[in-house]
Amino acid sequence: MKSRYEQGLEILREYTDEEKGTNHFELMKALEDISPDLGKYIIEFAYGDIYNRDHLDKKGRALTVLSSLVTQGSGSLPQLELHINTALNAGLTEKEIVEAMMQLIPYVGFPSVINALTQARQVFQERDNKQKTYA
Amino acid sequence: MKSRYEQGLEILREYTDEEKGTNHFELMKALEDISPDLGKYIIEFAYGDIYNRDHLDKKGRALTVLSSLVTQGSGSLPQLELHINTALNAGLTEKEIVEAMMQLIPYVGFPSVINALTQARQVFQERDNKQKTYA
Amino acid sequence: MKSRYEQGLEILREYTDEEKGTNHFELMKALEDISPDLGKYIIEFAYGDIYNRDHLDKKGRALTVLSSLVTQGSGSLPQLELHINTALNAGLTEKEIVEAMMQLIPYVGFPSVINALTQARQVFQERDNKQKTYA
Amino acid sequence: MKSRYEQGLEILREYTDEEKGTNHFELMKALEDISPDLGKYIIEFAYGDIYNRDHLDKKGRALTVLSSLVTQGSGSLPQLELHINTALNAGLTEKEIVEAMMQLIPYVGFPSVINALTQARQVFQERDNKQKTYA
Amino acid sequence: MKSRYEQGLEILREYTDEEKGTNHFELMKALEDISPDLGKYIIEFAYGDIYNRDHLDKKGRALTVLSSLVTQGSGSLPQLELHINTALNAGLTEKEIVEAMMQLIPYVGFPSVINALTQARQVFQERDNKQKTYA
Amino acid sequence: MKSRYEQGLEILREYTDEEKGTNHFELMKALEDISPDLGKYIIEFAYGDIYNRDHLDKKGRALTVLSSLVTQGSGSLPQLELHINTALNAGLTEKEIVEAMMQLIPYVGFPSVINALTQARQVFQERDNKQKTYA
Repeated sequence: MKSRYEQGLEILREYTDEEKGTNHFELMKALEDISPDLGKYIIEFAYGDIYNRDHLDKKGRALTVLSSLVTQGSGSLPQLELHINTALNAGLTEKEIVEAMMQLIPYVGFPSVINALTQARQVFQERDNKQKTYA
Repeated sequence: MKSRYEQGLEILREYTDEEKGTNHFELMKALEDISPDLGKYIIEFAYGDIYNRDHLDKKGRALTVLSSLVTQGSGSLPQLELHINTALNAGLTEKEIVEAMMQLIPYVGFPSVINALTQARQVFQERDNKQKTYA
Repeated sequence: MKSRYEQGLEILREYTDEEKGTNHFELMKALEDISPDLGKYIIEFAYGDIYNRDHLDKKGRALTVLSSLVTQGSGSLPQLELHINTALNAGLTEKEIVEAMMQLIPYVGFPSVINALTQARQVFQERDNKQKTYA
Repeated sequence: MKSRYEQGLEILREYTDEEKGTNHFELMKALEDISPDLGKYIIEFAYGDIYNRDHLDKKGRALTVLSSLVTQGSGSLPQLELHINTALNAGLTEKEIVEAMMQLIPYVGFPSVINALTQARQVFQERDNKQKTYA
Repeated sequence: MKSRYEQGLEILREYTDEEKGTNHFELMKALEDISPDLGKYIIEFAYGDIYNRDHLDKKGRALTVLSSLVTQGSGSLPQLELHINTALNAGLTEKEIVEAMMQLIPYVGFPSVINALTQARQVFQERDNKQKTYA
Repeated sequence: MKSRYEQGLEILREYTDEEKGTNHFELMKALEDISPDLGKYIIEFAYGDIYNRDHLDKKGRALTVLSSLVTQGSGSLPQLELHINTALNAGLTEKEIVEAMMQLIPYVGFPSVINALTQARQVFQERDNKQKTYA
């Protein structure tokens, strides 16, 4: 039977496209020297335990996380960038992602949504550029 | 052509079940004396302009809003209660709502999720009781 | 020359009406046993140093603080109640207070504003009742 | 009769000085490709409906919004920069803006206020430089 | 070798005193019907993985968590109540807990600290009453 | 008898190492022109009144403040950088600081902790480089 780590890694790969945009593996590598366990917990707990659960599909999970990060404000912009990529990898379209952000205007106000859309636009462009590179 | 108000009212009704749980109409009535325009803006802007948009379905919109309110913390418990009802009316199941909250543990920590689940449990029970009353 | 404490007390009295609504003196008394210095710091620093400054009048200061507490969310409801009273004592009208809260809808979303208006309505009623008592 | 959009545009212009500092028009243009409706909602709802209301003057509204953005923390720095400009355009002086930020120290702590003052200082300098350019 | 669950349970017991104040076991039992895995994650991840780590002792961990909950605002009051108990069980004194809260005034402002001290006072009293009962 | 300012300055010096990392003196100097009193309040109130208190030692106070800033999110990154330096100057080790951040994962989620660890790693490197310069 697969360990939580192996299961988590499998699930994380379903949400990752290493050729497009920032991804978790880069992030965990960057912090490996001061906290080697951080990556282990993200893979085992966040992906192995939580993302691995039933009753809500990948797109629903990505949408839930995206909304939370927009709500948390611009302070989470590095993770917002990461999870806009995750959302696209999970199968949400650019239009759906923009809509989710617009949907939040009555709940968090314009500032957070403006910052999130600015981040989204940047991610969409970077992925387009990468696509052109590989065409 | 329908006014923004009429369109908003129609959309709000799609997300409301006046026989089960708290709903927006009660809330807007309660604040009508000190701010009569509040209800007008909720109906015209939140529902007439925002919820009325394309590219993300009712369940996706309800999920997005739910996640934001859980993230905003227990300070928003009255609205969280309202929107758990909205989410159920939009077609999300109790299991999907619980899953969305569980999905947020790695992104907001346990405290906010525990408070949200406590609120959800309460809403599910109230709706069950109402159901029994009408059986 | 008056001490910071005496100056602070004078300023705090300008913002307090002990016959109407909750006030700071009650709050500081309630916490006197576990933290006697809390009241001292509120009076000396918040009122003696900060509220005592020039270039922004009492109404401007009360408005600034009110807006911040609405933004901080329902978690600050006890202080929001206190400062709605403070704002009225500083000379802001009920209409101005409601307007300031409405002004925040595009900046914090509807939930926080709804909770704040609910609190305001409650304060206005309590003060009206007290007024009737003393008529 | 003027549409909500036209009314909103008029009000937004009262709060904008296109020769000094960042302004809303630049922001809305930057996001026009991924979300053309964003600017429409800002103009129609934020300015046409909300800023257009009575009972609180322009300076009061600008002060309210400024305080909220300082409270929301450095995550909103792009909007804080924008609204420090808006506040100056609305007639608040540099001294009043600094005072409003200082007033928040007892309510949000020093970190948020320090970040806000740093942003304010930067805006004041940029506007001074622009002024010298046009002298 | 002990499972993560068993290790977590052991650690959680070191931070729990079932005769005094609210505790995690009650909380997890209350939510068992809608989310049986919640308690499993708290025990395995929060206690088995995180609290179980080296390089920071029990008092340091309890202090860190307490400070975070005070900062998160009154929305987390149920968990703040729980963790004031946890902090006392970990060996922090009432005086140290009050001091940690006072230390946060310059970093979060007075409102959050006032709410936290009010909660602390309540917990101290409840534990005193329980003590008298068992004397 | 020493004034609050002198006492505060003494305490602030105990938490400062002007040869390593950013410090308060630089920060206060940068804002001296628009708000000369800011530095005075930080020294007199934050250090002279609050840090100067008994019943919680320097390491406990630094830990409390660090935890709060991590919780406040990336919006406070400039102050987080400052206070990671303060914590090291107060006698906390790099390992203890990393542990405090890891301890917060179950309470604030991974995003805020990842941003904080990234900031910590940067501070540790800068201090190491400065050390090498002076060797």
